[in-house]
Amino acid sequence: MHYLVLLLDLGGTFVFAISGAMVGIRRRLDVFGVLVLSFAAGNAGGITRDLLIGAVPPAAIADWRYVVVSVVAGLITFLWYPITNRFGREVLWFDAIGLSFFAVAGAEKALAHGIHPMMAALLGMLTGIGGGILRDVLVSGIPTVLRADIYALAALAGASVVVSAHYLGIPPTVAAVVGGVLCFVLRFMAIRRGWHLPTAWSAQDVPSPDPARPENENG
Amino acid sequence: MHYLVLLLDLGGTFVFAISGAMVGIRRRLDVFGVLVLSFAAGNAGGITRDLLIGAVPPAAIADWRYVVVSVVAGLITFLWYPITNRFGREVLWFDAIGLSFFAVAGAEKALAHGIHPMMAALLGMLTGIGGGILRDVLVSGIPTVLRADIYALAALAGASVVVSAHYLGIPPTVAAVVGGVLCFVLRFMAIRRGWHLPTAWSAQDVPSPDPARPENENG
Amino acid sequence: MHYLVLLLDLGGTFVFAISGAMVGIRRRLDVFGVLVLSFAAGNAGGITRDLLIGAVPPAAIADWRYVVVSVVAGLITFLWYPITNRFGREVLWFDAIGLSFFAVAGAEKALAHGIHPMMAALLGMLTGIGGGILRDVLVSGIPTVLRADIYALAALAGASVVVSAHYLGIPPTVAAVVGGVLCFVLRFMAIRRGWHLPTAWSAQDVPSPDPARPENENG
Repeated sequence: MHYLVLLLDLGGTFVFAISGAMVGIRRRLDVFGVLVLSFAAGNAGGITRDLLIGAVPPAAIADWRYVVVSVVAGLITFLWYPITNRFGREVLWFDAIGLSFFAVAGAEKALAHGIHPMMAALLGMLTGIGGGILRDVLVSGIPTVLRADIYALAALAGASVVVSAHYLGIPPTVAAVVGGVLCFVLRFMAIRRGWHLPTAWSAQDVPSPDPARPENENG
Repeated sequence: MHYLVLLLDLGGTFVFAISGAMVGIRRRLDVFGVLVLSFAAGNAGGITRDLLIGAVPPAAIADWRYVVVSVVAGLITFLWYPITNRFGREVLWFDAIGLSFFAVAGAEKALAHGIHPMMAALLGMLTGIGGGILRDVLVSGIPTVLRADIYALAALAGASVVVSAHYLGIPPTVAAVVGGVLCFVLRFMAIRRGWHLPTAWSAQDVPSPDPARPENENG
Repeated sequence: MHYLVLLLDLGGTFVFAISGAMVGIRRRLDVFGVLVLSFAAGNAGGITRDLLIGAVPPAAIADWRYVVVSVVAGLITFLWYPITNRFGREVLWFDAIGLSFFAVAGAEKALAHGIHPMMAALLGMLTGIGGGILRDVLVSGIPTVLRADIYALAALAGASVVVSAHYLGIPPTVAAVVGGVLCFVLRFMAIRRGWHLPTAWSAQDVPSPDPARPENENG
């Protein structure tokens, strides 16, 4: 199971590092800034999980492969930017795959460290959304993770499958596949069909007090 | 004393989770994003404290009640938003209560882990202001905590009472009440009377270089 | 070597605390908010490093001198703001000194905790850039660290010297001086000569798709 977590973690790191690099490039960071953002997006979720469950030093620090994977993903994105830039929509699929990998890996690792099942599912979710949150905070936007259609919820669903399977005695590999697929499908459908959860405004059918508020504009 | 910290912590979590939910709703996050922000606002201070004093996994991860309290507070705020929205001013009082709870609980717990008294007082302050800082950073504003009239200072005053009492042999329950009340009163007076600390501009009576800069105005 | 790390750490803390205070004053925070930002800028890098290598509680929490140094630096900057404000350009030199101190201290401490050499160099870099990142995120800007000409790279170069010297058997004091000077000179030349790394746009000579794009809407 250690091997399973490692594989999922590295896969998720690769995919999220690409998303970090793309955001960095769009914000016109130099190549080194882009690589820092690749590493942050690819590893913040896993590092936060490891700090919270007491797995110190975190895998992304103790094991050099996480950095290498992040840097390779960042360099590919940077060097081939005229090409990668065209894959605007496709990046969403990559991102959904990364989310699934991390949600499953995060829940597995938290369970292996004896964390309470409900918290293990939430830590799986956090592993999935942590990298995207840091990525967006560093370029000072509201994290898309908090706004995107059924994003964190998809991660929580996938992680919950892993946790439930653990208590039902289902083998972790099977649970990882089922949980990962569920997370991906939920996110996929949300993107495709525009599924989304209610906001307080829509739920209450009350006009928003700040319909055209530009969010924020310091620099 | 463990029980005292738990009670204060959960109370503070509940109140700050409400403030997190209100900010999330105003920024038009969906219901799940609102709950994530509730949890972040209600627990970031305590989690940071626990990581820094080596109490791993942090209470908010090891104990499922923190999540439940956060989610309940977030859901109440979300579902009754047309009502809760009217309590703009009242939220400040709730927030002041949460600040007092956390400042006291944070200092007690840091002392119990053998942290240097001056640092224990500062960790009490950090416990109080951490959640509000993360809440505001996630929606990309300058933390109101850093701008509001006598906010962090009130938390530091309350935490300092707890630390002083510890060294004077005063029972922790008494110290918690006195420290909490001091924090609340300071914050209350600051809001009511507009008490505030000097800025470098006011202190020096020098015109600001950016007088009409909008900055940002959540809260 | 413990003493060497302490000295470099405190020196870096002092200098970065000044930069934090200056940013806080410009954003019109009150005196307490300015001190919080001083502490954040002066210690976030070291605290993050210590959490990641498992040195808990972090030095900046376990040892009261870090707070005192931060507060003194913040107060000096605040009280003498009409004077310190004039040193716009000079602050960059101070900042470069702090970066060098932290990069070297961070790498030394990571090595002392048995971290993999490549990761130790990266942790040295992180120690150098962490404080500036938190400082800028708290006032909700894109961290200058990620945009400035050869900033993180200079820190990585300095830290790499320390790590290499460790494996070549060169005494840590010598390594610290050489690494620190290399970091400072690189940063100095970058400022003076406008050295910078390529961005994806400049590298590819492709027009930016979003020349006047205000904030961010990835996803």
